[in-house]
Amino acid sequence: MSSGPVGFICGSGRLPIEAADAAIAAGRAVFLIGLRGAADPEIERFPHTWVRLGEVGKLFKALDGAGAREITLLGGVQRPSIRDLGLDMTGLVAMPELKRLLSGGDDKLLRGLVTFVESRGYRVIGVHEAAPDLLAPEGIFGAHEADAESAAGVSAAMNVLAALGPFDVGQAAVALGARVVAIEAAEGTDGMLRRVARMVEKRRLRRDGRGGVLVKLPKPGQDLRIDLPAIGPRTIELAIQAGLSAVAVAAGGVLIAEKAKVVAMAVEGRLFVAGVPQSAYAAS
Amino acid sequence: MSSGPVGFICGSGRLPIEAADAAIAAGRAVFLIGLRGAADPEIERFPHTWVRLGEVGKLFKALDGAGAREITLLGGVQRPSIRDLGLDMTGLVAMPELKRLLSGGDDKLLRGLVTFVESRGYRVIGVHEAAPDLLAPEGIFGAHEADAESAAGVSAAMNVLAALGPFDVGQAAVALGARVVAIEAAEGTDGMLRRVARMVEKRRLRRDGRGGVLVKLPKPGQDLRIDLPAIGPRTIELAIQAGLSAVAVAAGGVLIAEKAKVVAMAVEGRLFVAGVPQSAYAAS
Repeated sequence: MSSGPVGFICGSGRLPIEAADAAIAAGRAVFLIGLRGAADPEIERFPHTWVRLGEVGKLFKALDGAGAREITLLGGVQRPSIRDLGLDMTGLVAMPELKRLLSGGDDKLLRGLVTFVESRGYRVIGVHEAAPDLLAPEGIFGAHEADAESAAGVSAAMNVLAALGPFDVGQAAVALGARVVAIEAAEGTDGMLRRVARMVEKRRLRRDGRGGVLVKLPKPGQDLRIDLPAIGPRTIELAIQAGLSAVAVAAGGVLIAEKAKVVAMAVEGRLFVAGVPQSAYAAS
Repeated sequence: MSSGPVGFICGSGRLPIEAADAAIAAGRAVFLIGLRGAADPEIERFPHTWVRLGEVGKLFKALDGAGAREITLLGGVQRPSIRDLGLDMTGLVAMPELKRLLSGGDDKLLRGLVTFVESRGYRVIGVHEAAPDLLAPEGIFGAHEADAESAAGVSAAMNVLAALGPFDVGQAAVALGARVVAIEAAEGTDGMLRRVARMVEKRRLRRDGRGGVLVKLPKPGQDLRIDLPAIGPRTIELAIQAGLSAVAVAAGGVLIAEKAKVVAMAVEGRLFVAGVPQSAYAAS
């Protein structure tokens, strides 16, 4: 770990703020660089500066001025038009390289950014490295105990996800009883939960009362620096709408955004959240 | 194979009619039993009778009268209320046994029906046994050749489905390029295709122009008598709406409803349909 602050490149959402607080609580200094038009103004609570996406020179200068050699990319960024980039001279010079690196899908864009930044002598780390407390702990939280039916569902969904591991598809699944009824691919976890809610509502899925589990795990070999699986209040809300009774995630492998709120919603919604140790799903 | 006609118990949809024609074309005699309120009146083109769902005695009498020892269950049936059953004496006597057999999910209901009918000395066969020409043949039909990108997608989706084989979930998947973007579970193939169309429309899935494949295969150990995977004109329509360029199904393992229409739609929609030999997806 470097001795200077970790530089947070901050896109939209609450995660950058939450991560900065968590990093500081973990004894790590931070320096936040807010992307104009994306980052929450609350980043100004911390040592910070603002840049436009194309102000690459200003970005590196700010990192160097703060003594930050490690960088974490946080929050959402819309793919900008060239006109909105606000390119500075360094950005302009780096443009051909950036264009090459950033073409392609979202994953490729992020990997391109990591390559670009690391080629400048910085090290990109994951938010989980700067603020490990953001990750799901092991064990059950929320107020409820795991029941046998939920355990069967968790096991069924974990087996399906483990089988899908080699294919870079699907990091989440939903089981009702021991039957897997939805597997996430490109639609994302929220989309999958909405689908389960619709199927229950239309009685395409029948069941006696409440039940069912969401399981979410990182894929084997997933680069957690740019693609850390996450759940948050929205996940819990959708899980409750789908009538689920449990959410199980990889302990140490899935970020829980706004954890206090997640726990409160789980207690209120009579749903338990479990952090499953890696030994339970990544055997062999 | 029995020497008498095969008894078709006919629910809703065109499949019973189409299967009766195909069975006759294959040299097999048929006797159709239409479920009132469900079956298409066109069953009257064939030797037939009508029964209500609860007229179990009448059903068996009709089968015996026609000399049918083999039965095929075809088309959809809504789960009836007791009031609508029209129970006859045999139905009334069998009621406790039927209730026990028919409780639970759709699969269990059908398995229960098979058990009930076979315990009466009849043999339940799949429509593919009575009318093998309804199944996808091996090779490409429609007017178009397989391109390299489609081949990569077919291979990726088949690998994912093979990995899911042991879990009794998912008999279809969609790949764009070599990336699997949707996996079918309880939502069914149509639901999955609609999801892909939505993701493309909302630019959650990006791609250059048209492309992508639907792959549909039976699950290992699937009871094809009660759960034969199928595609039809609606599948092709939804695949075209999702911008796919190919549909690949298991040759000899997936029913193609209204095949002439499917082929015409595929040609018109510039999409190819392929029957993949079992050796390509069920190795080892």
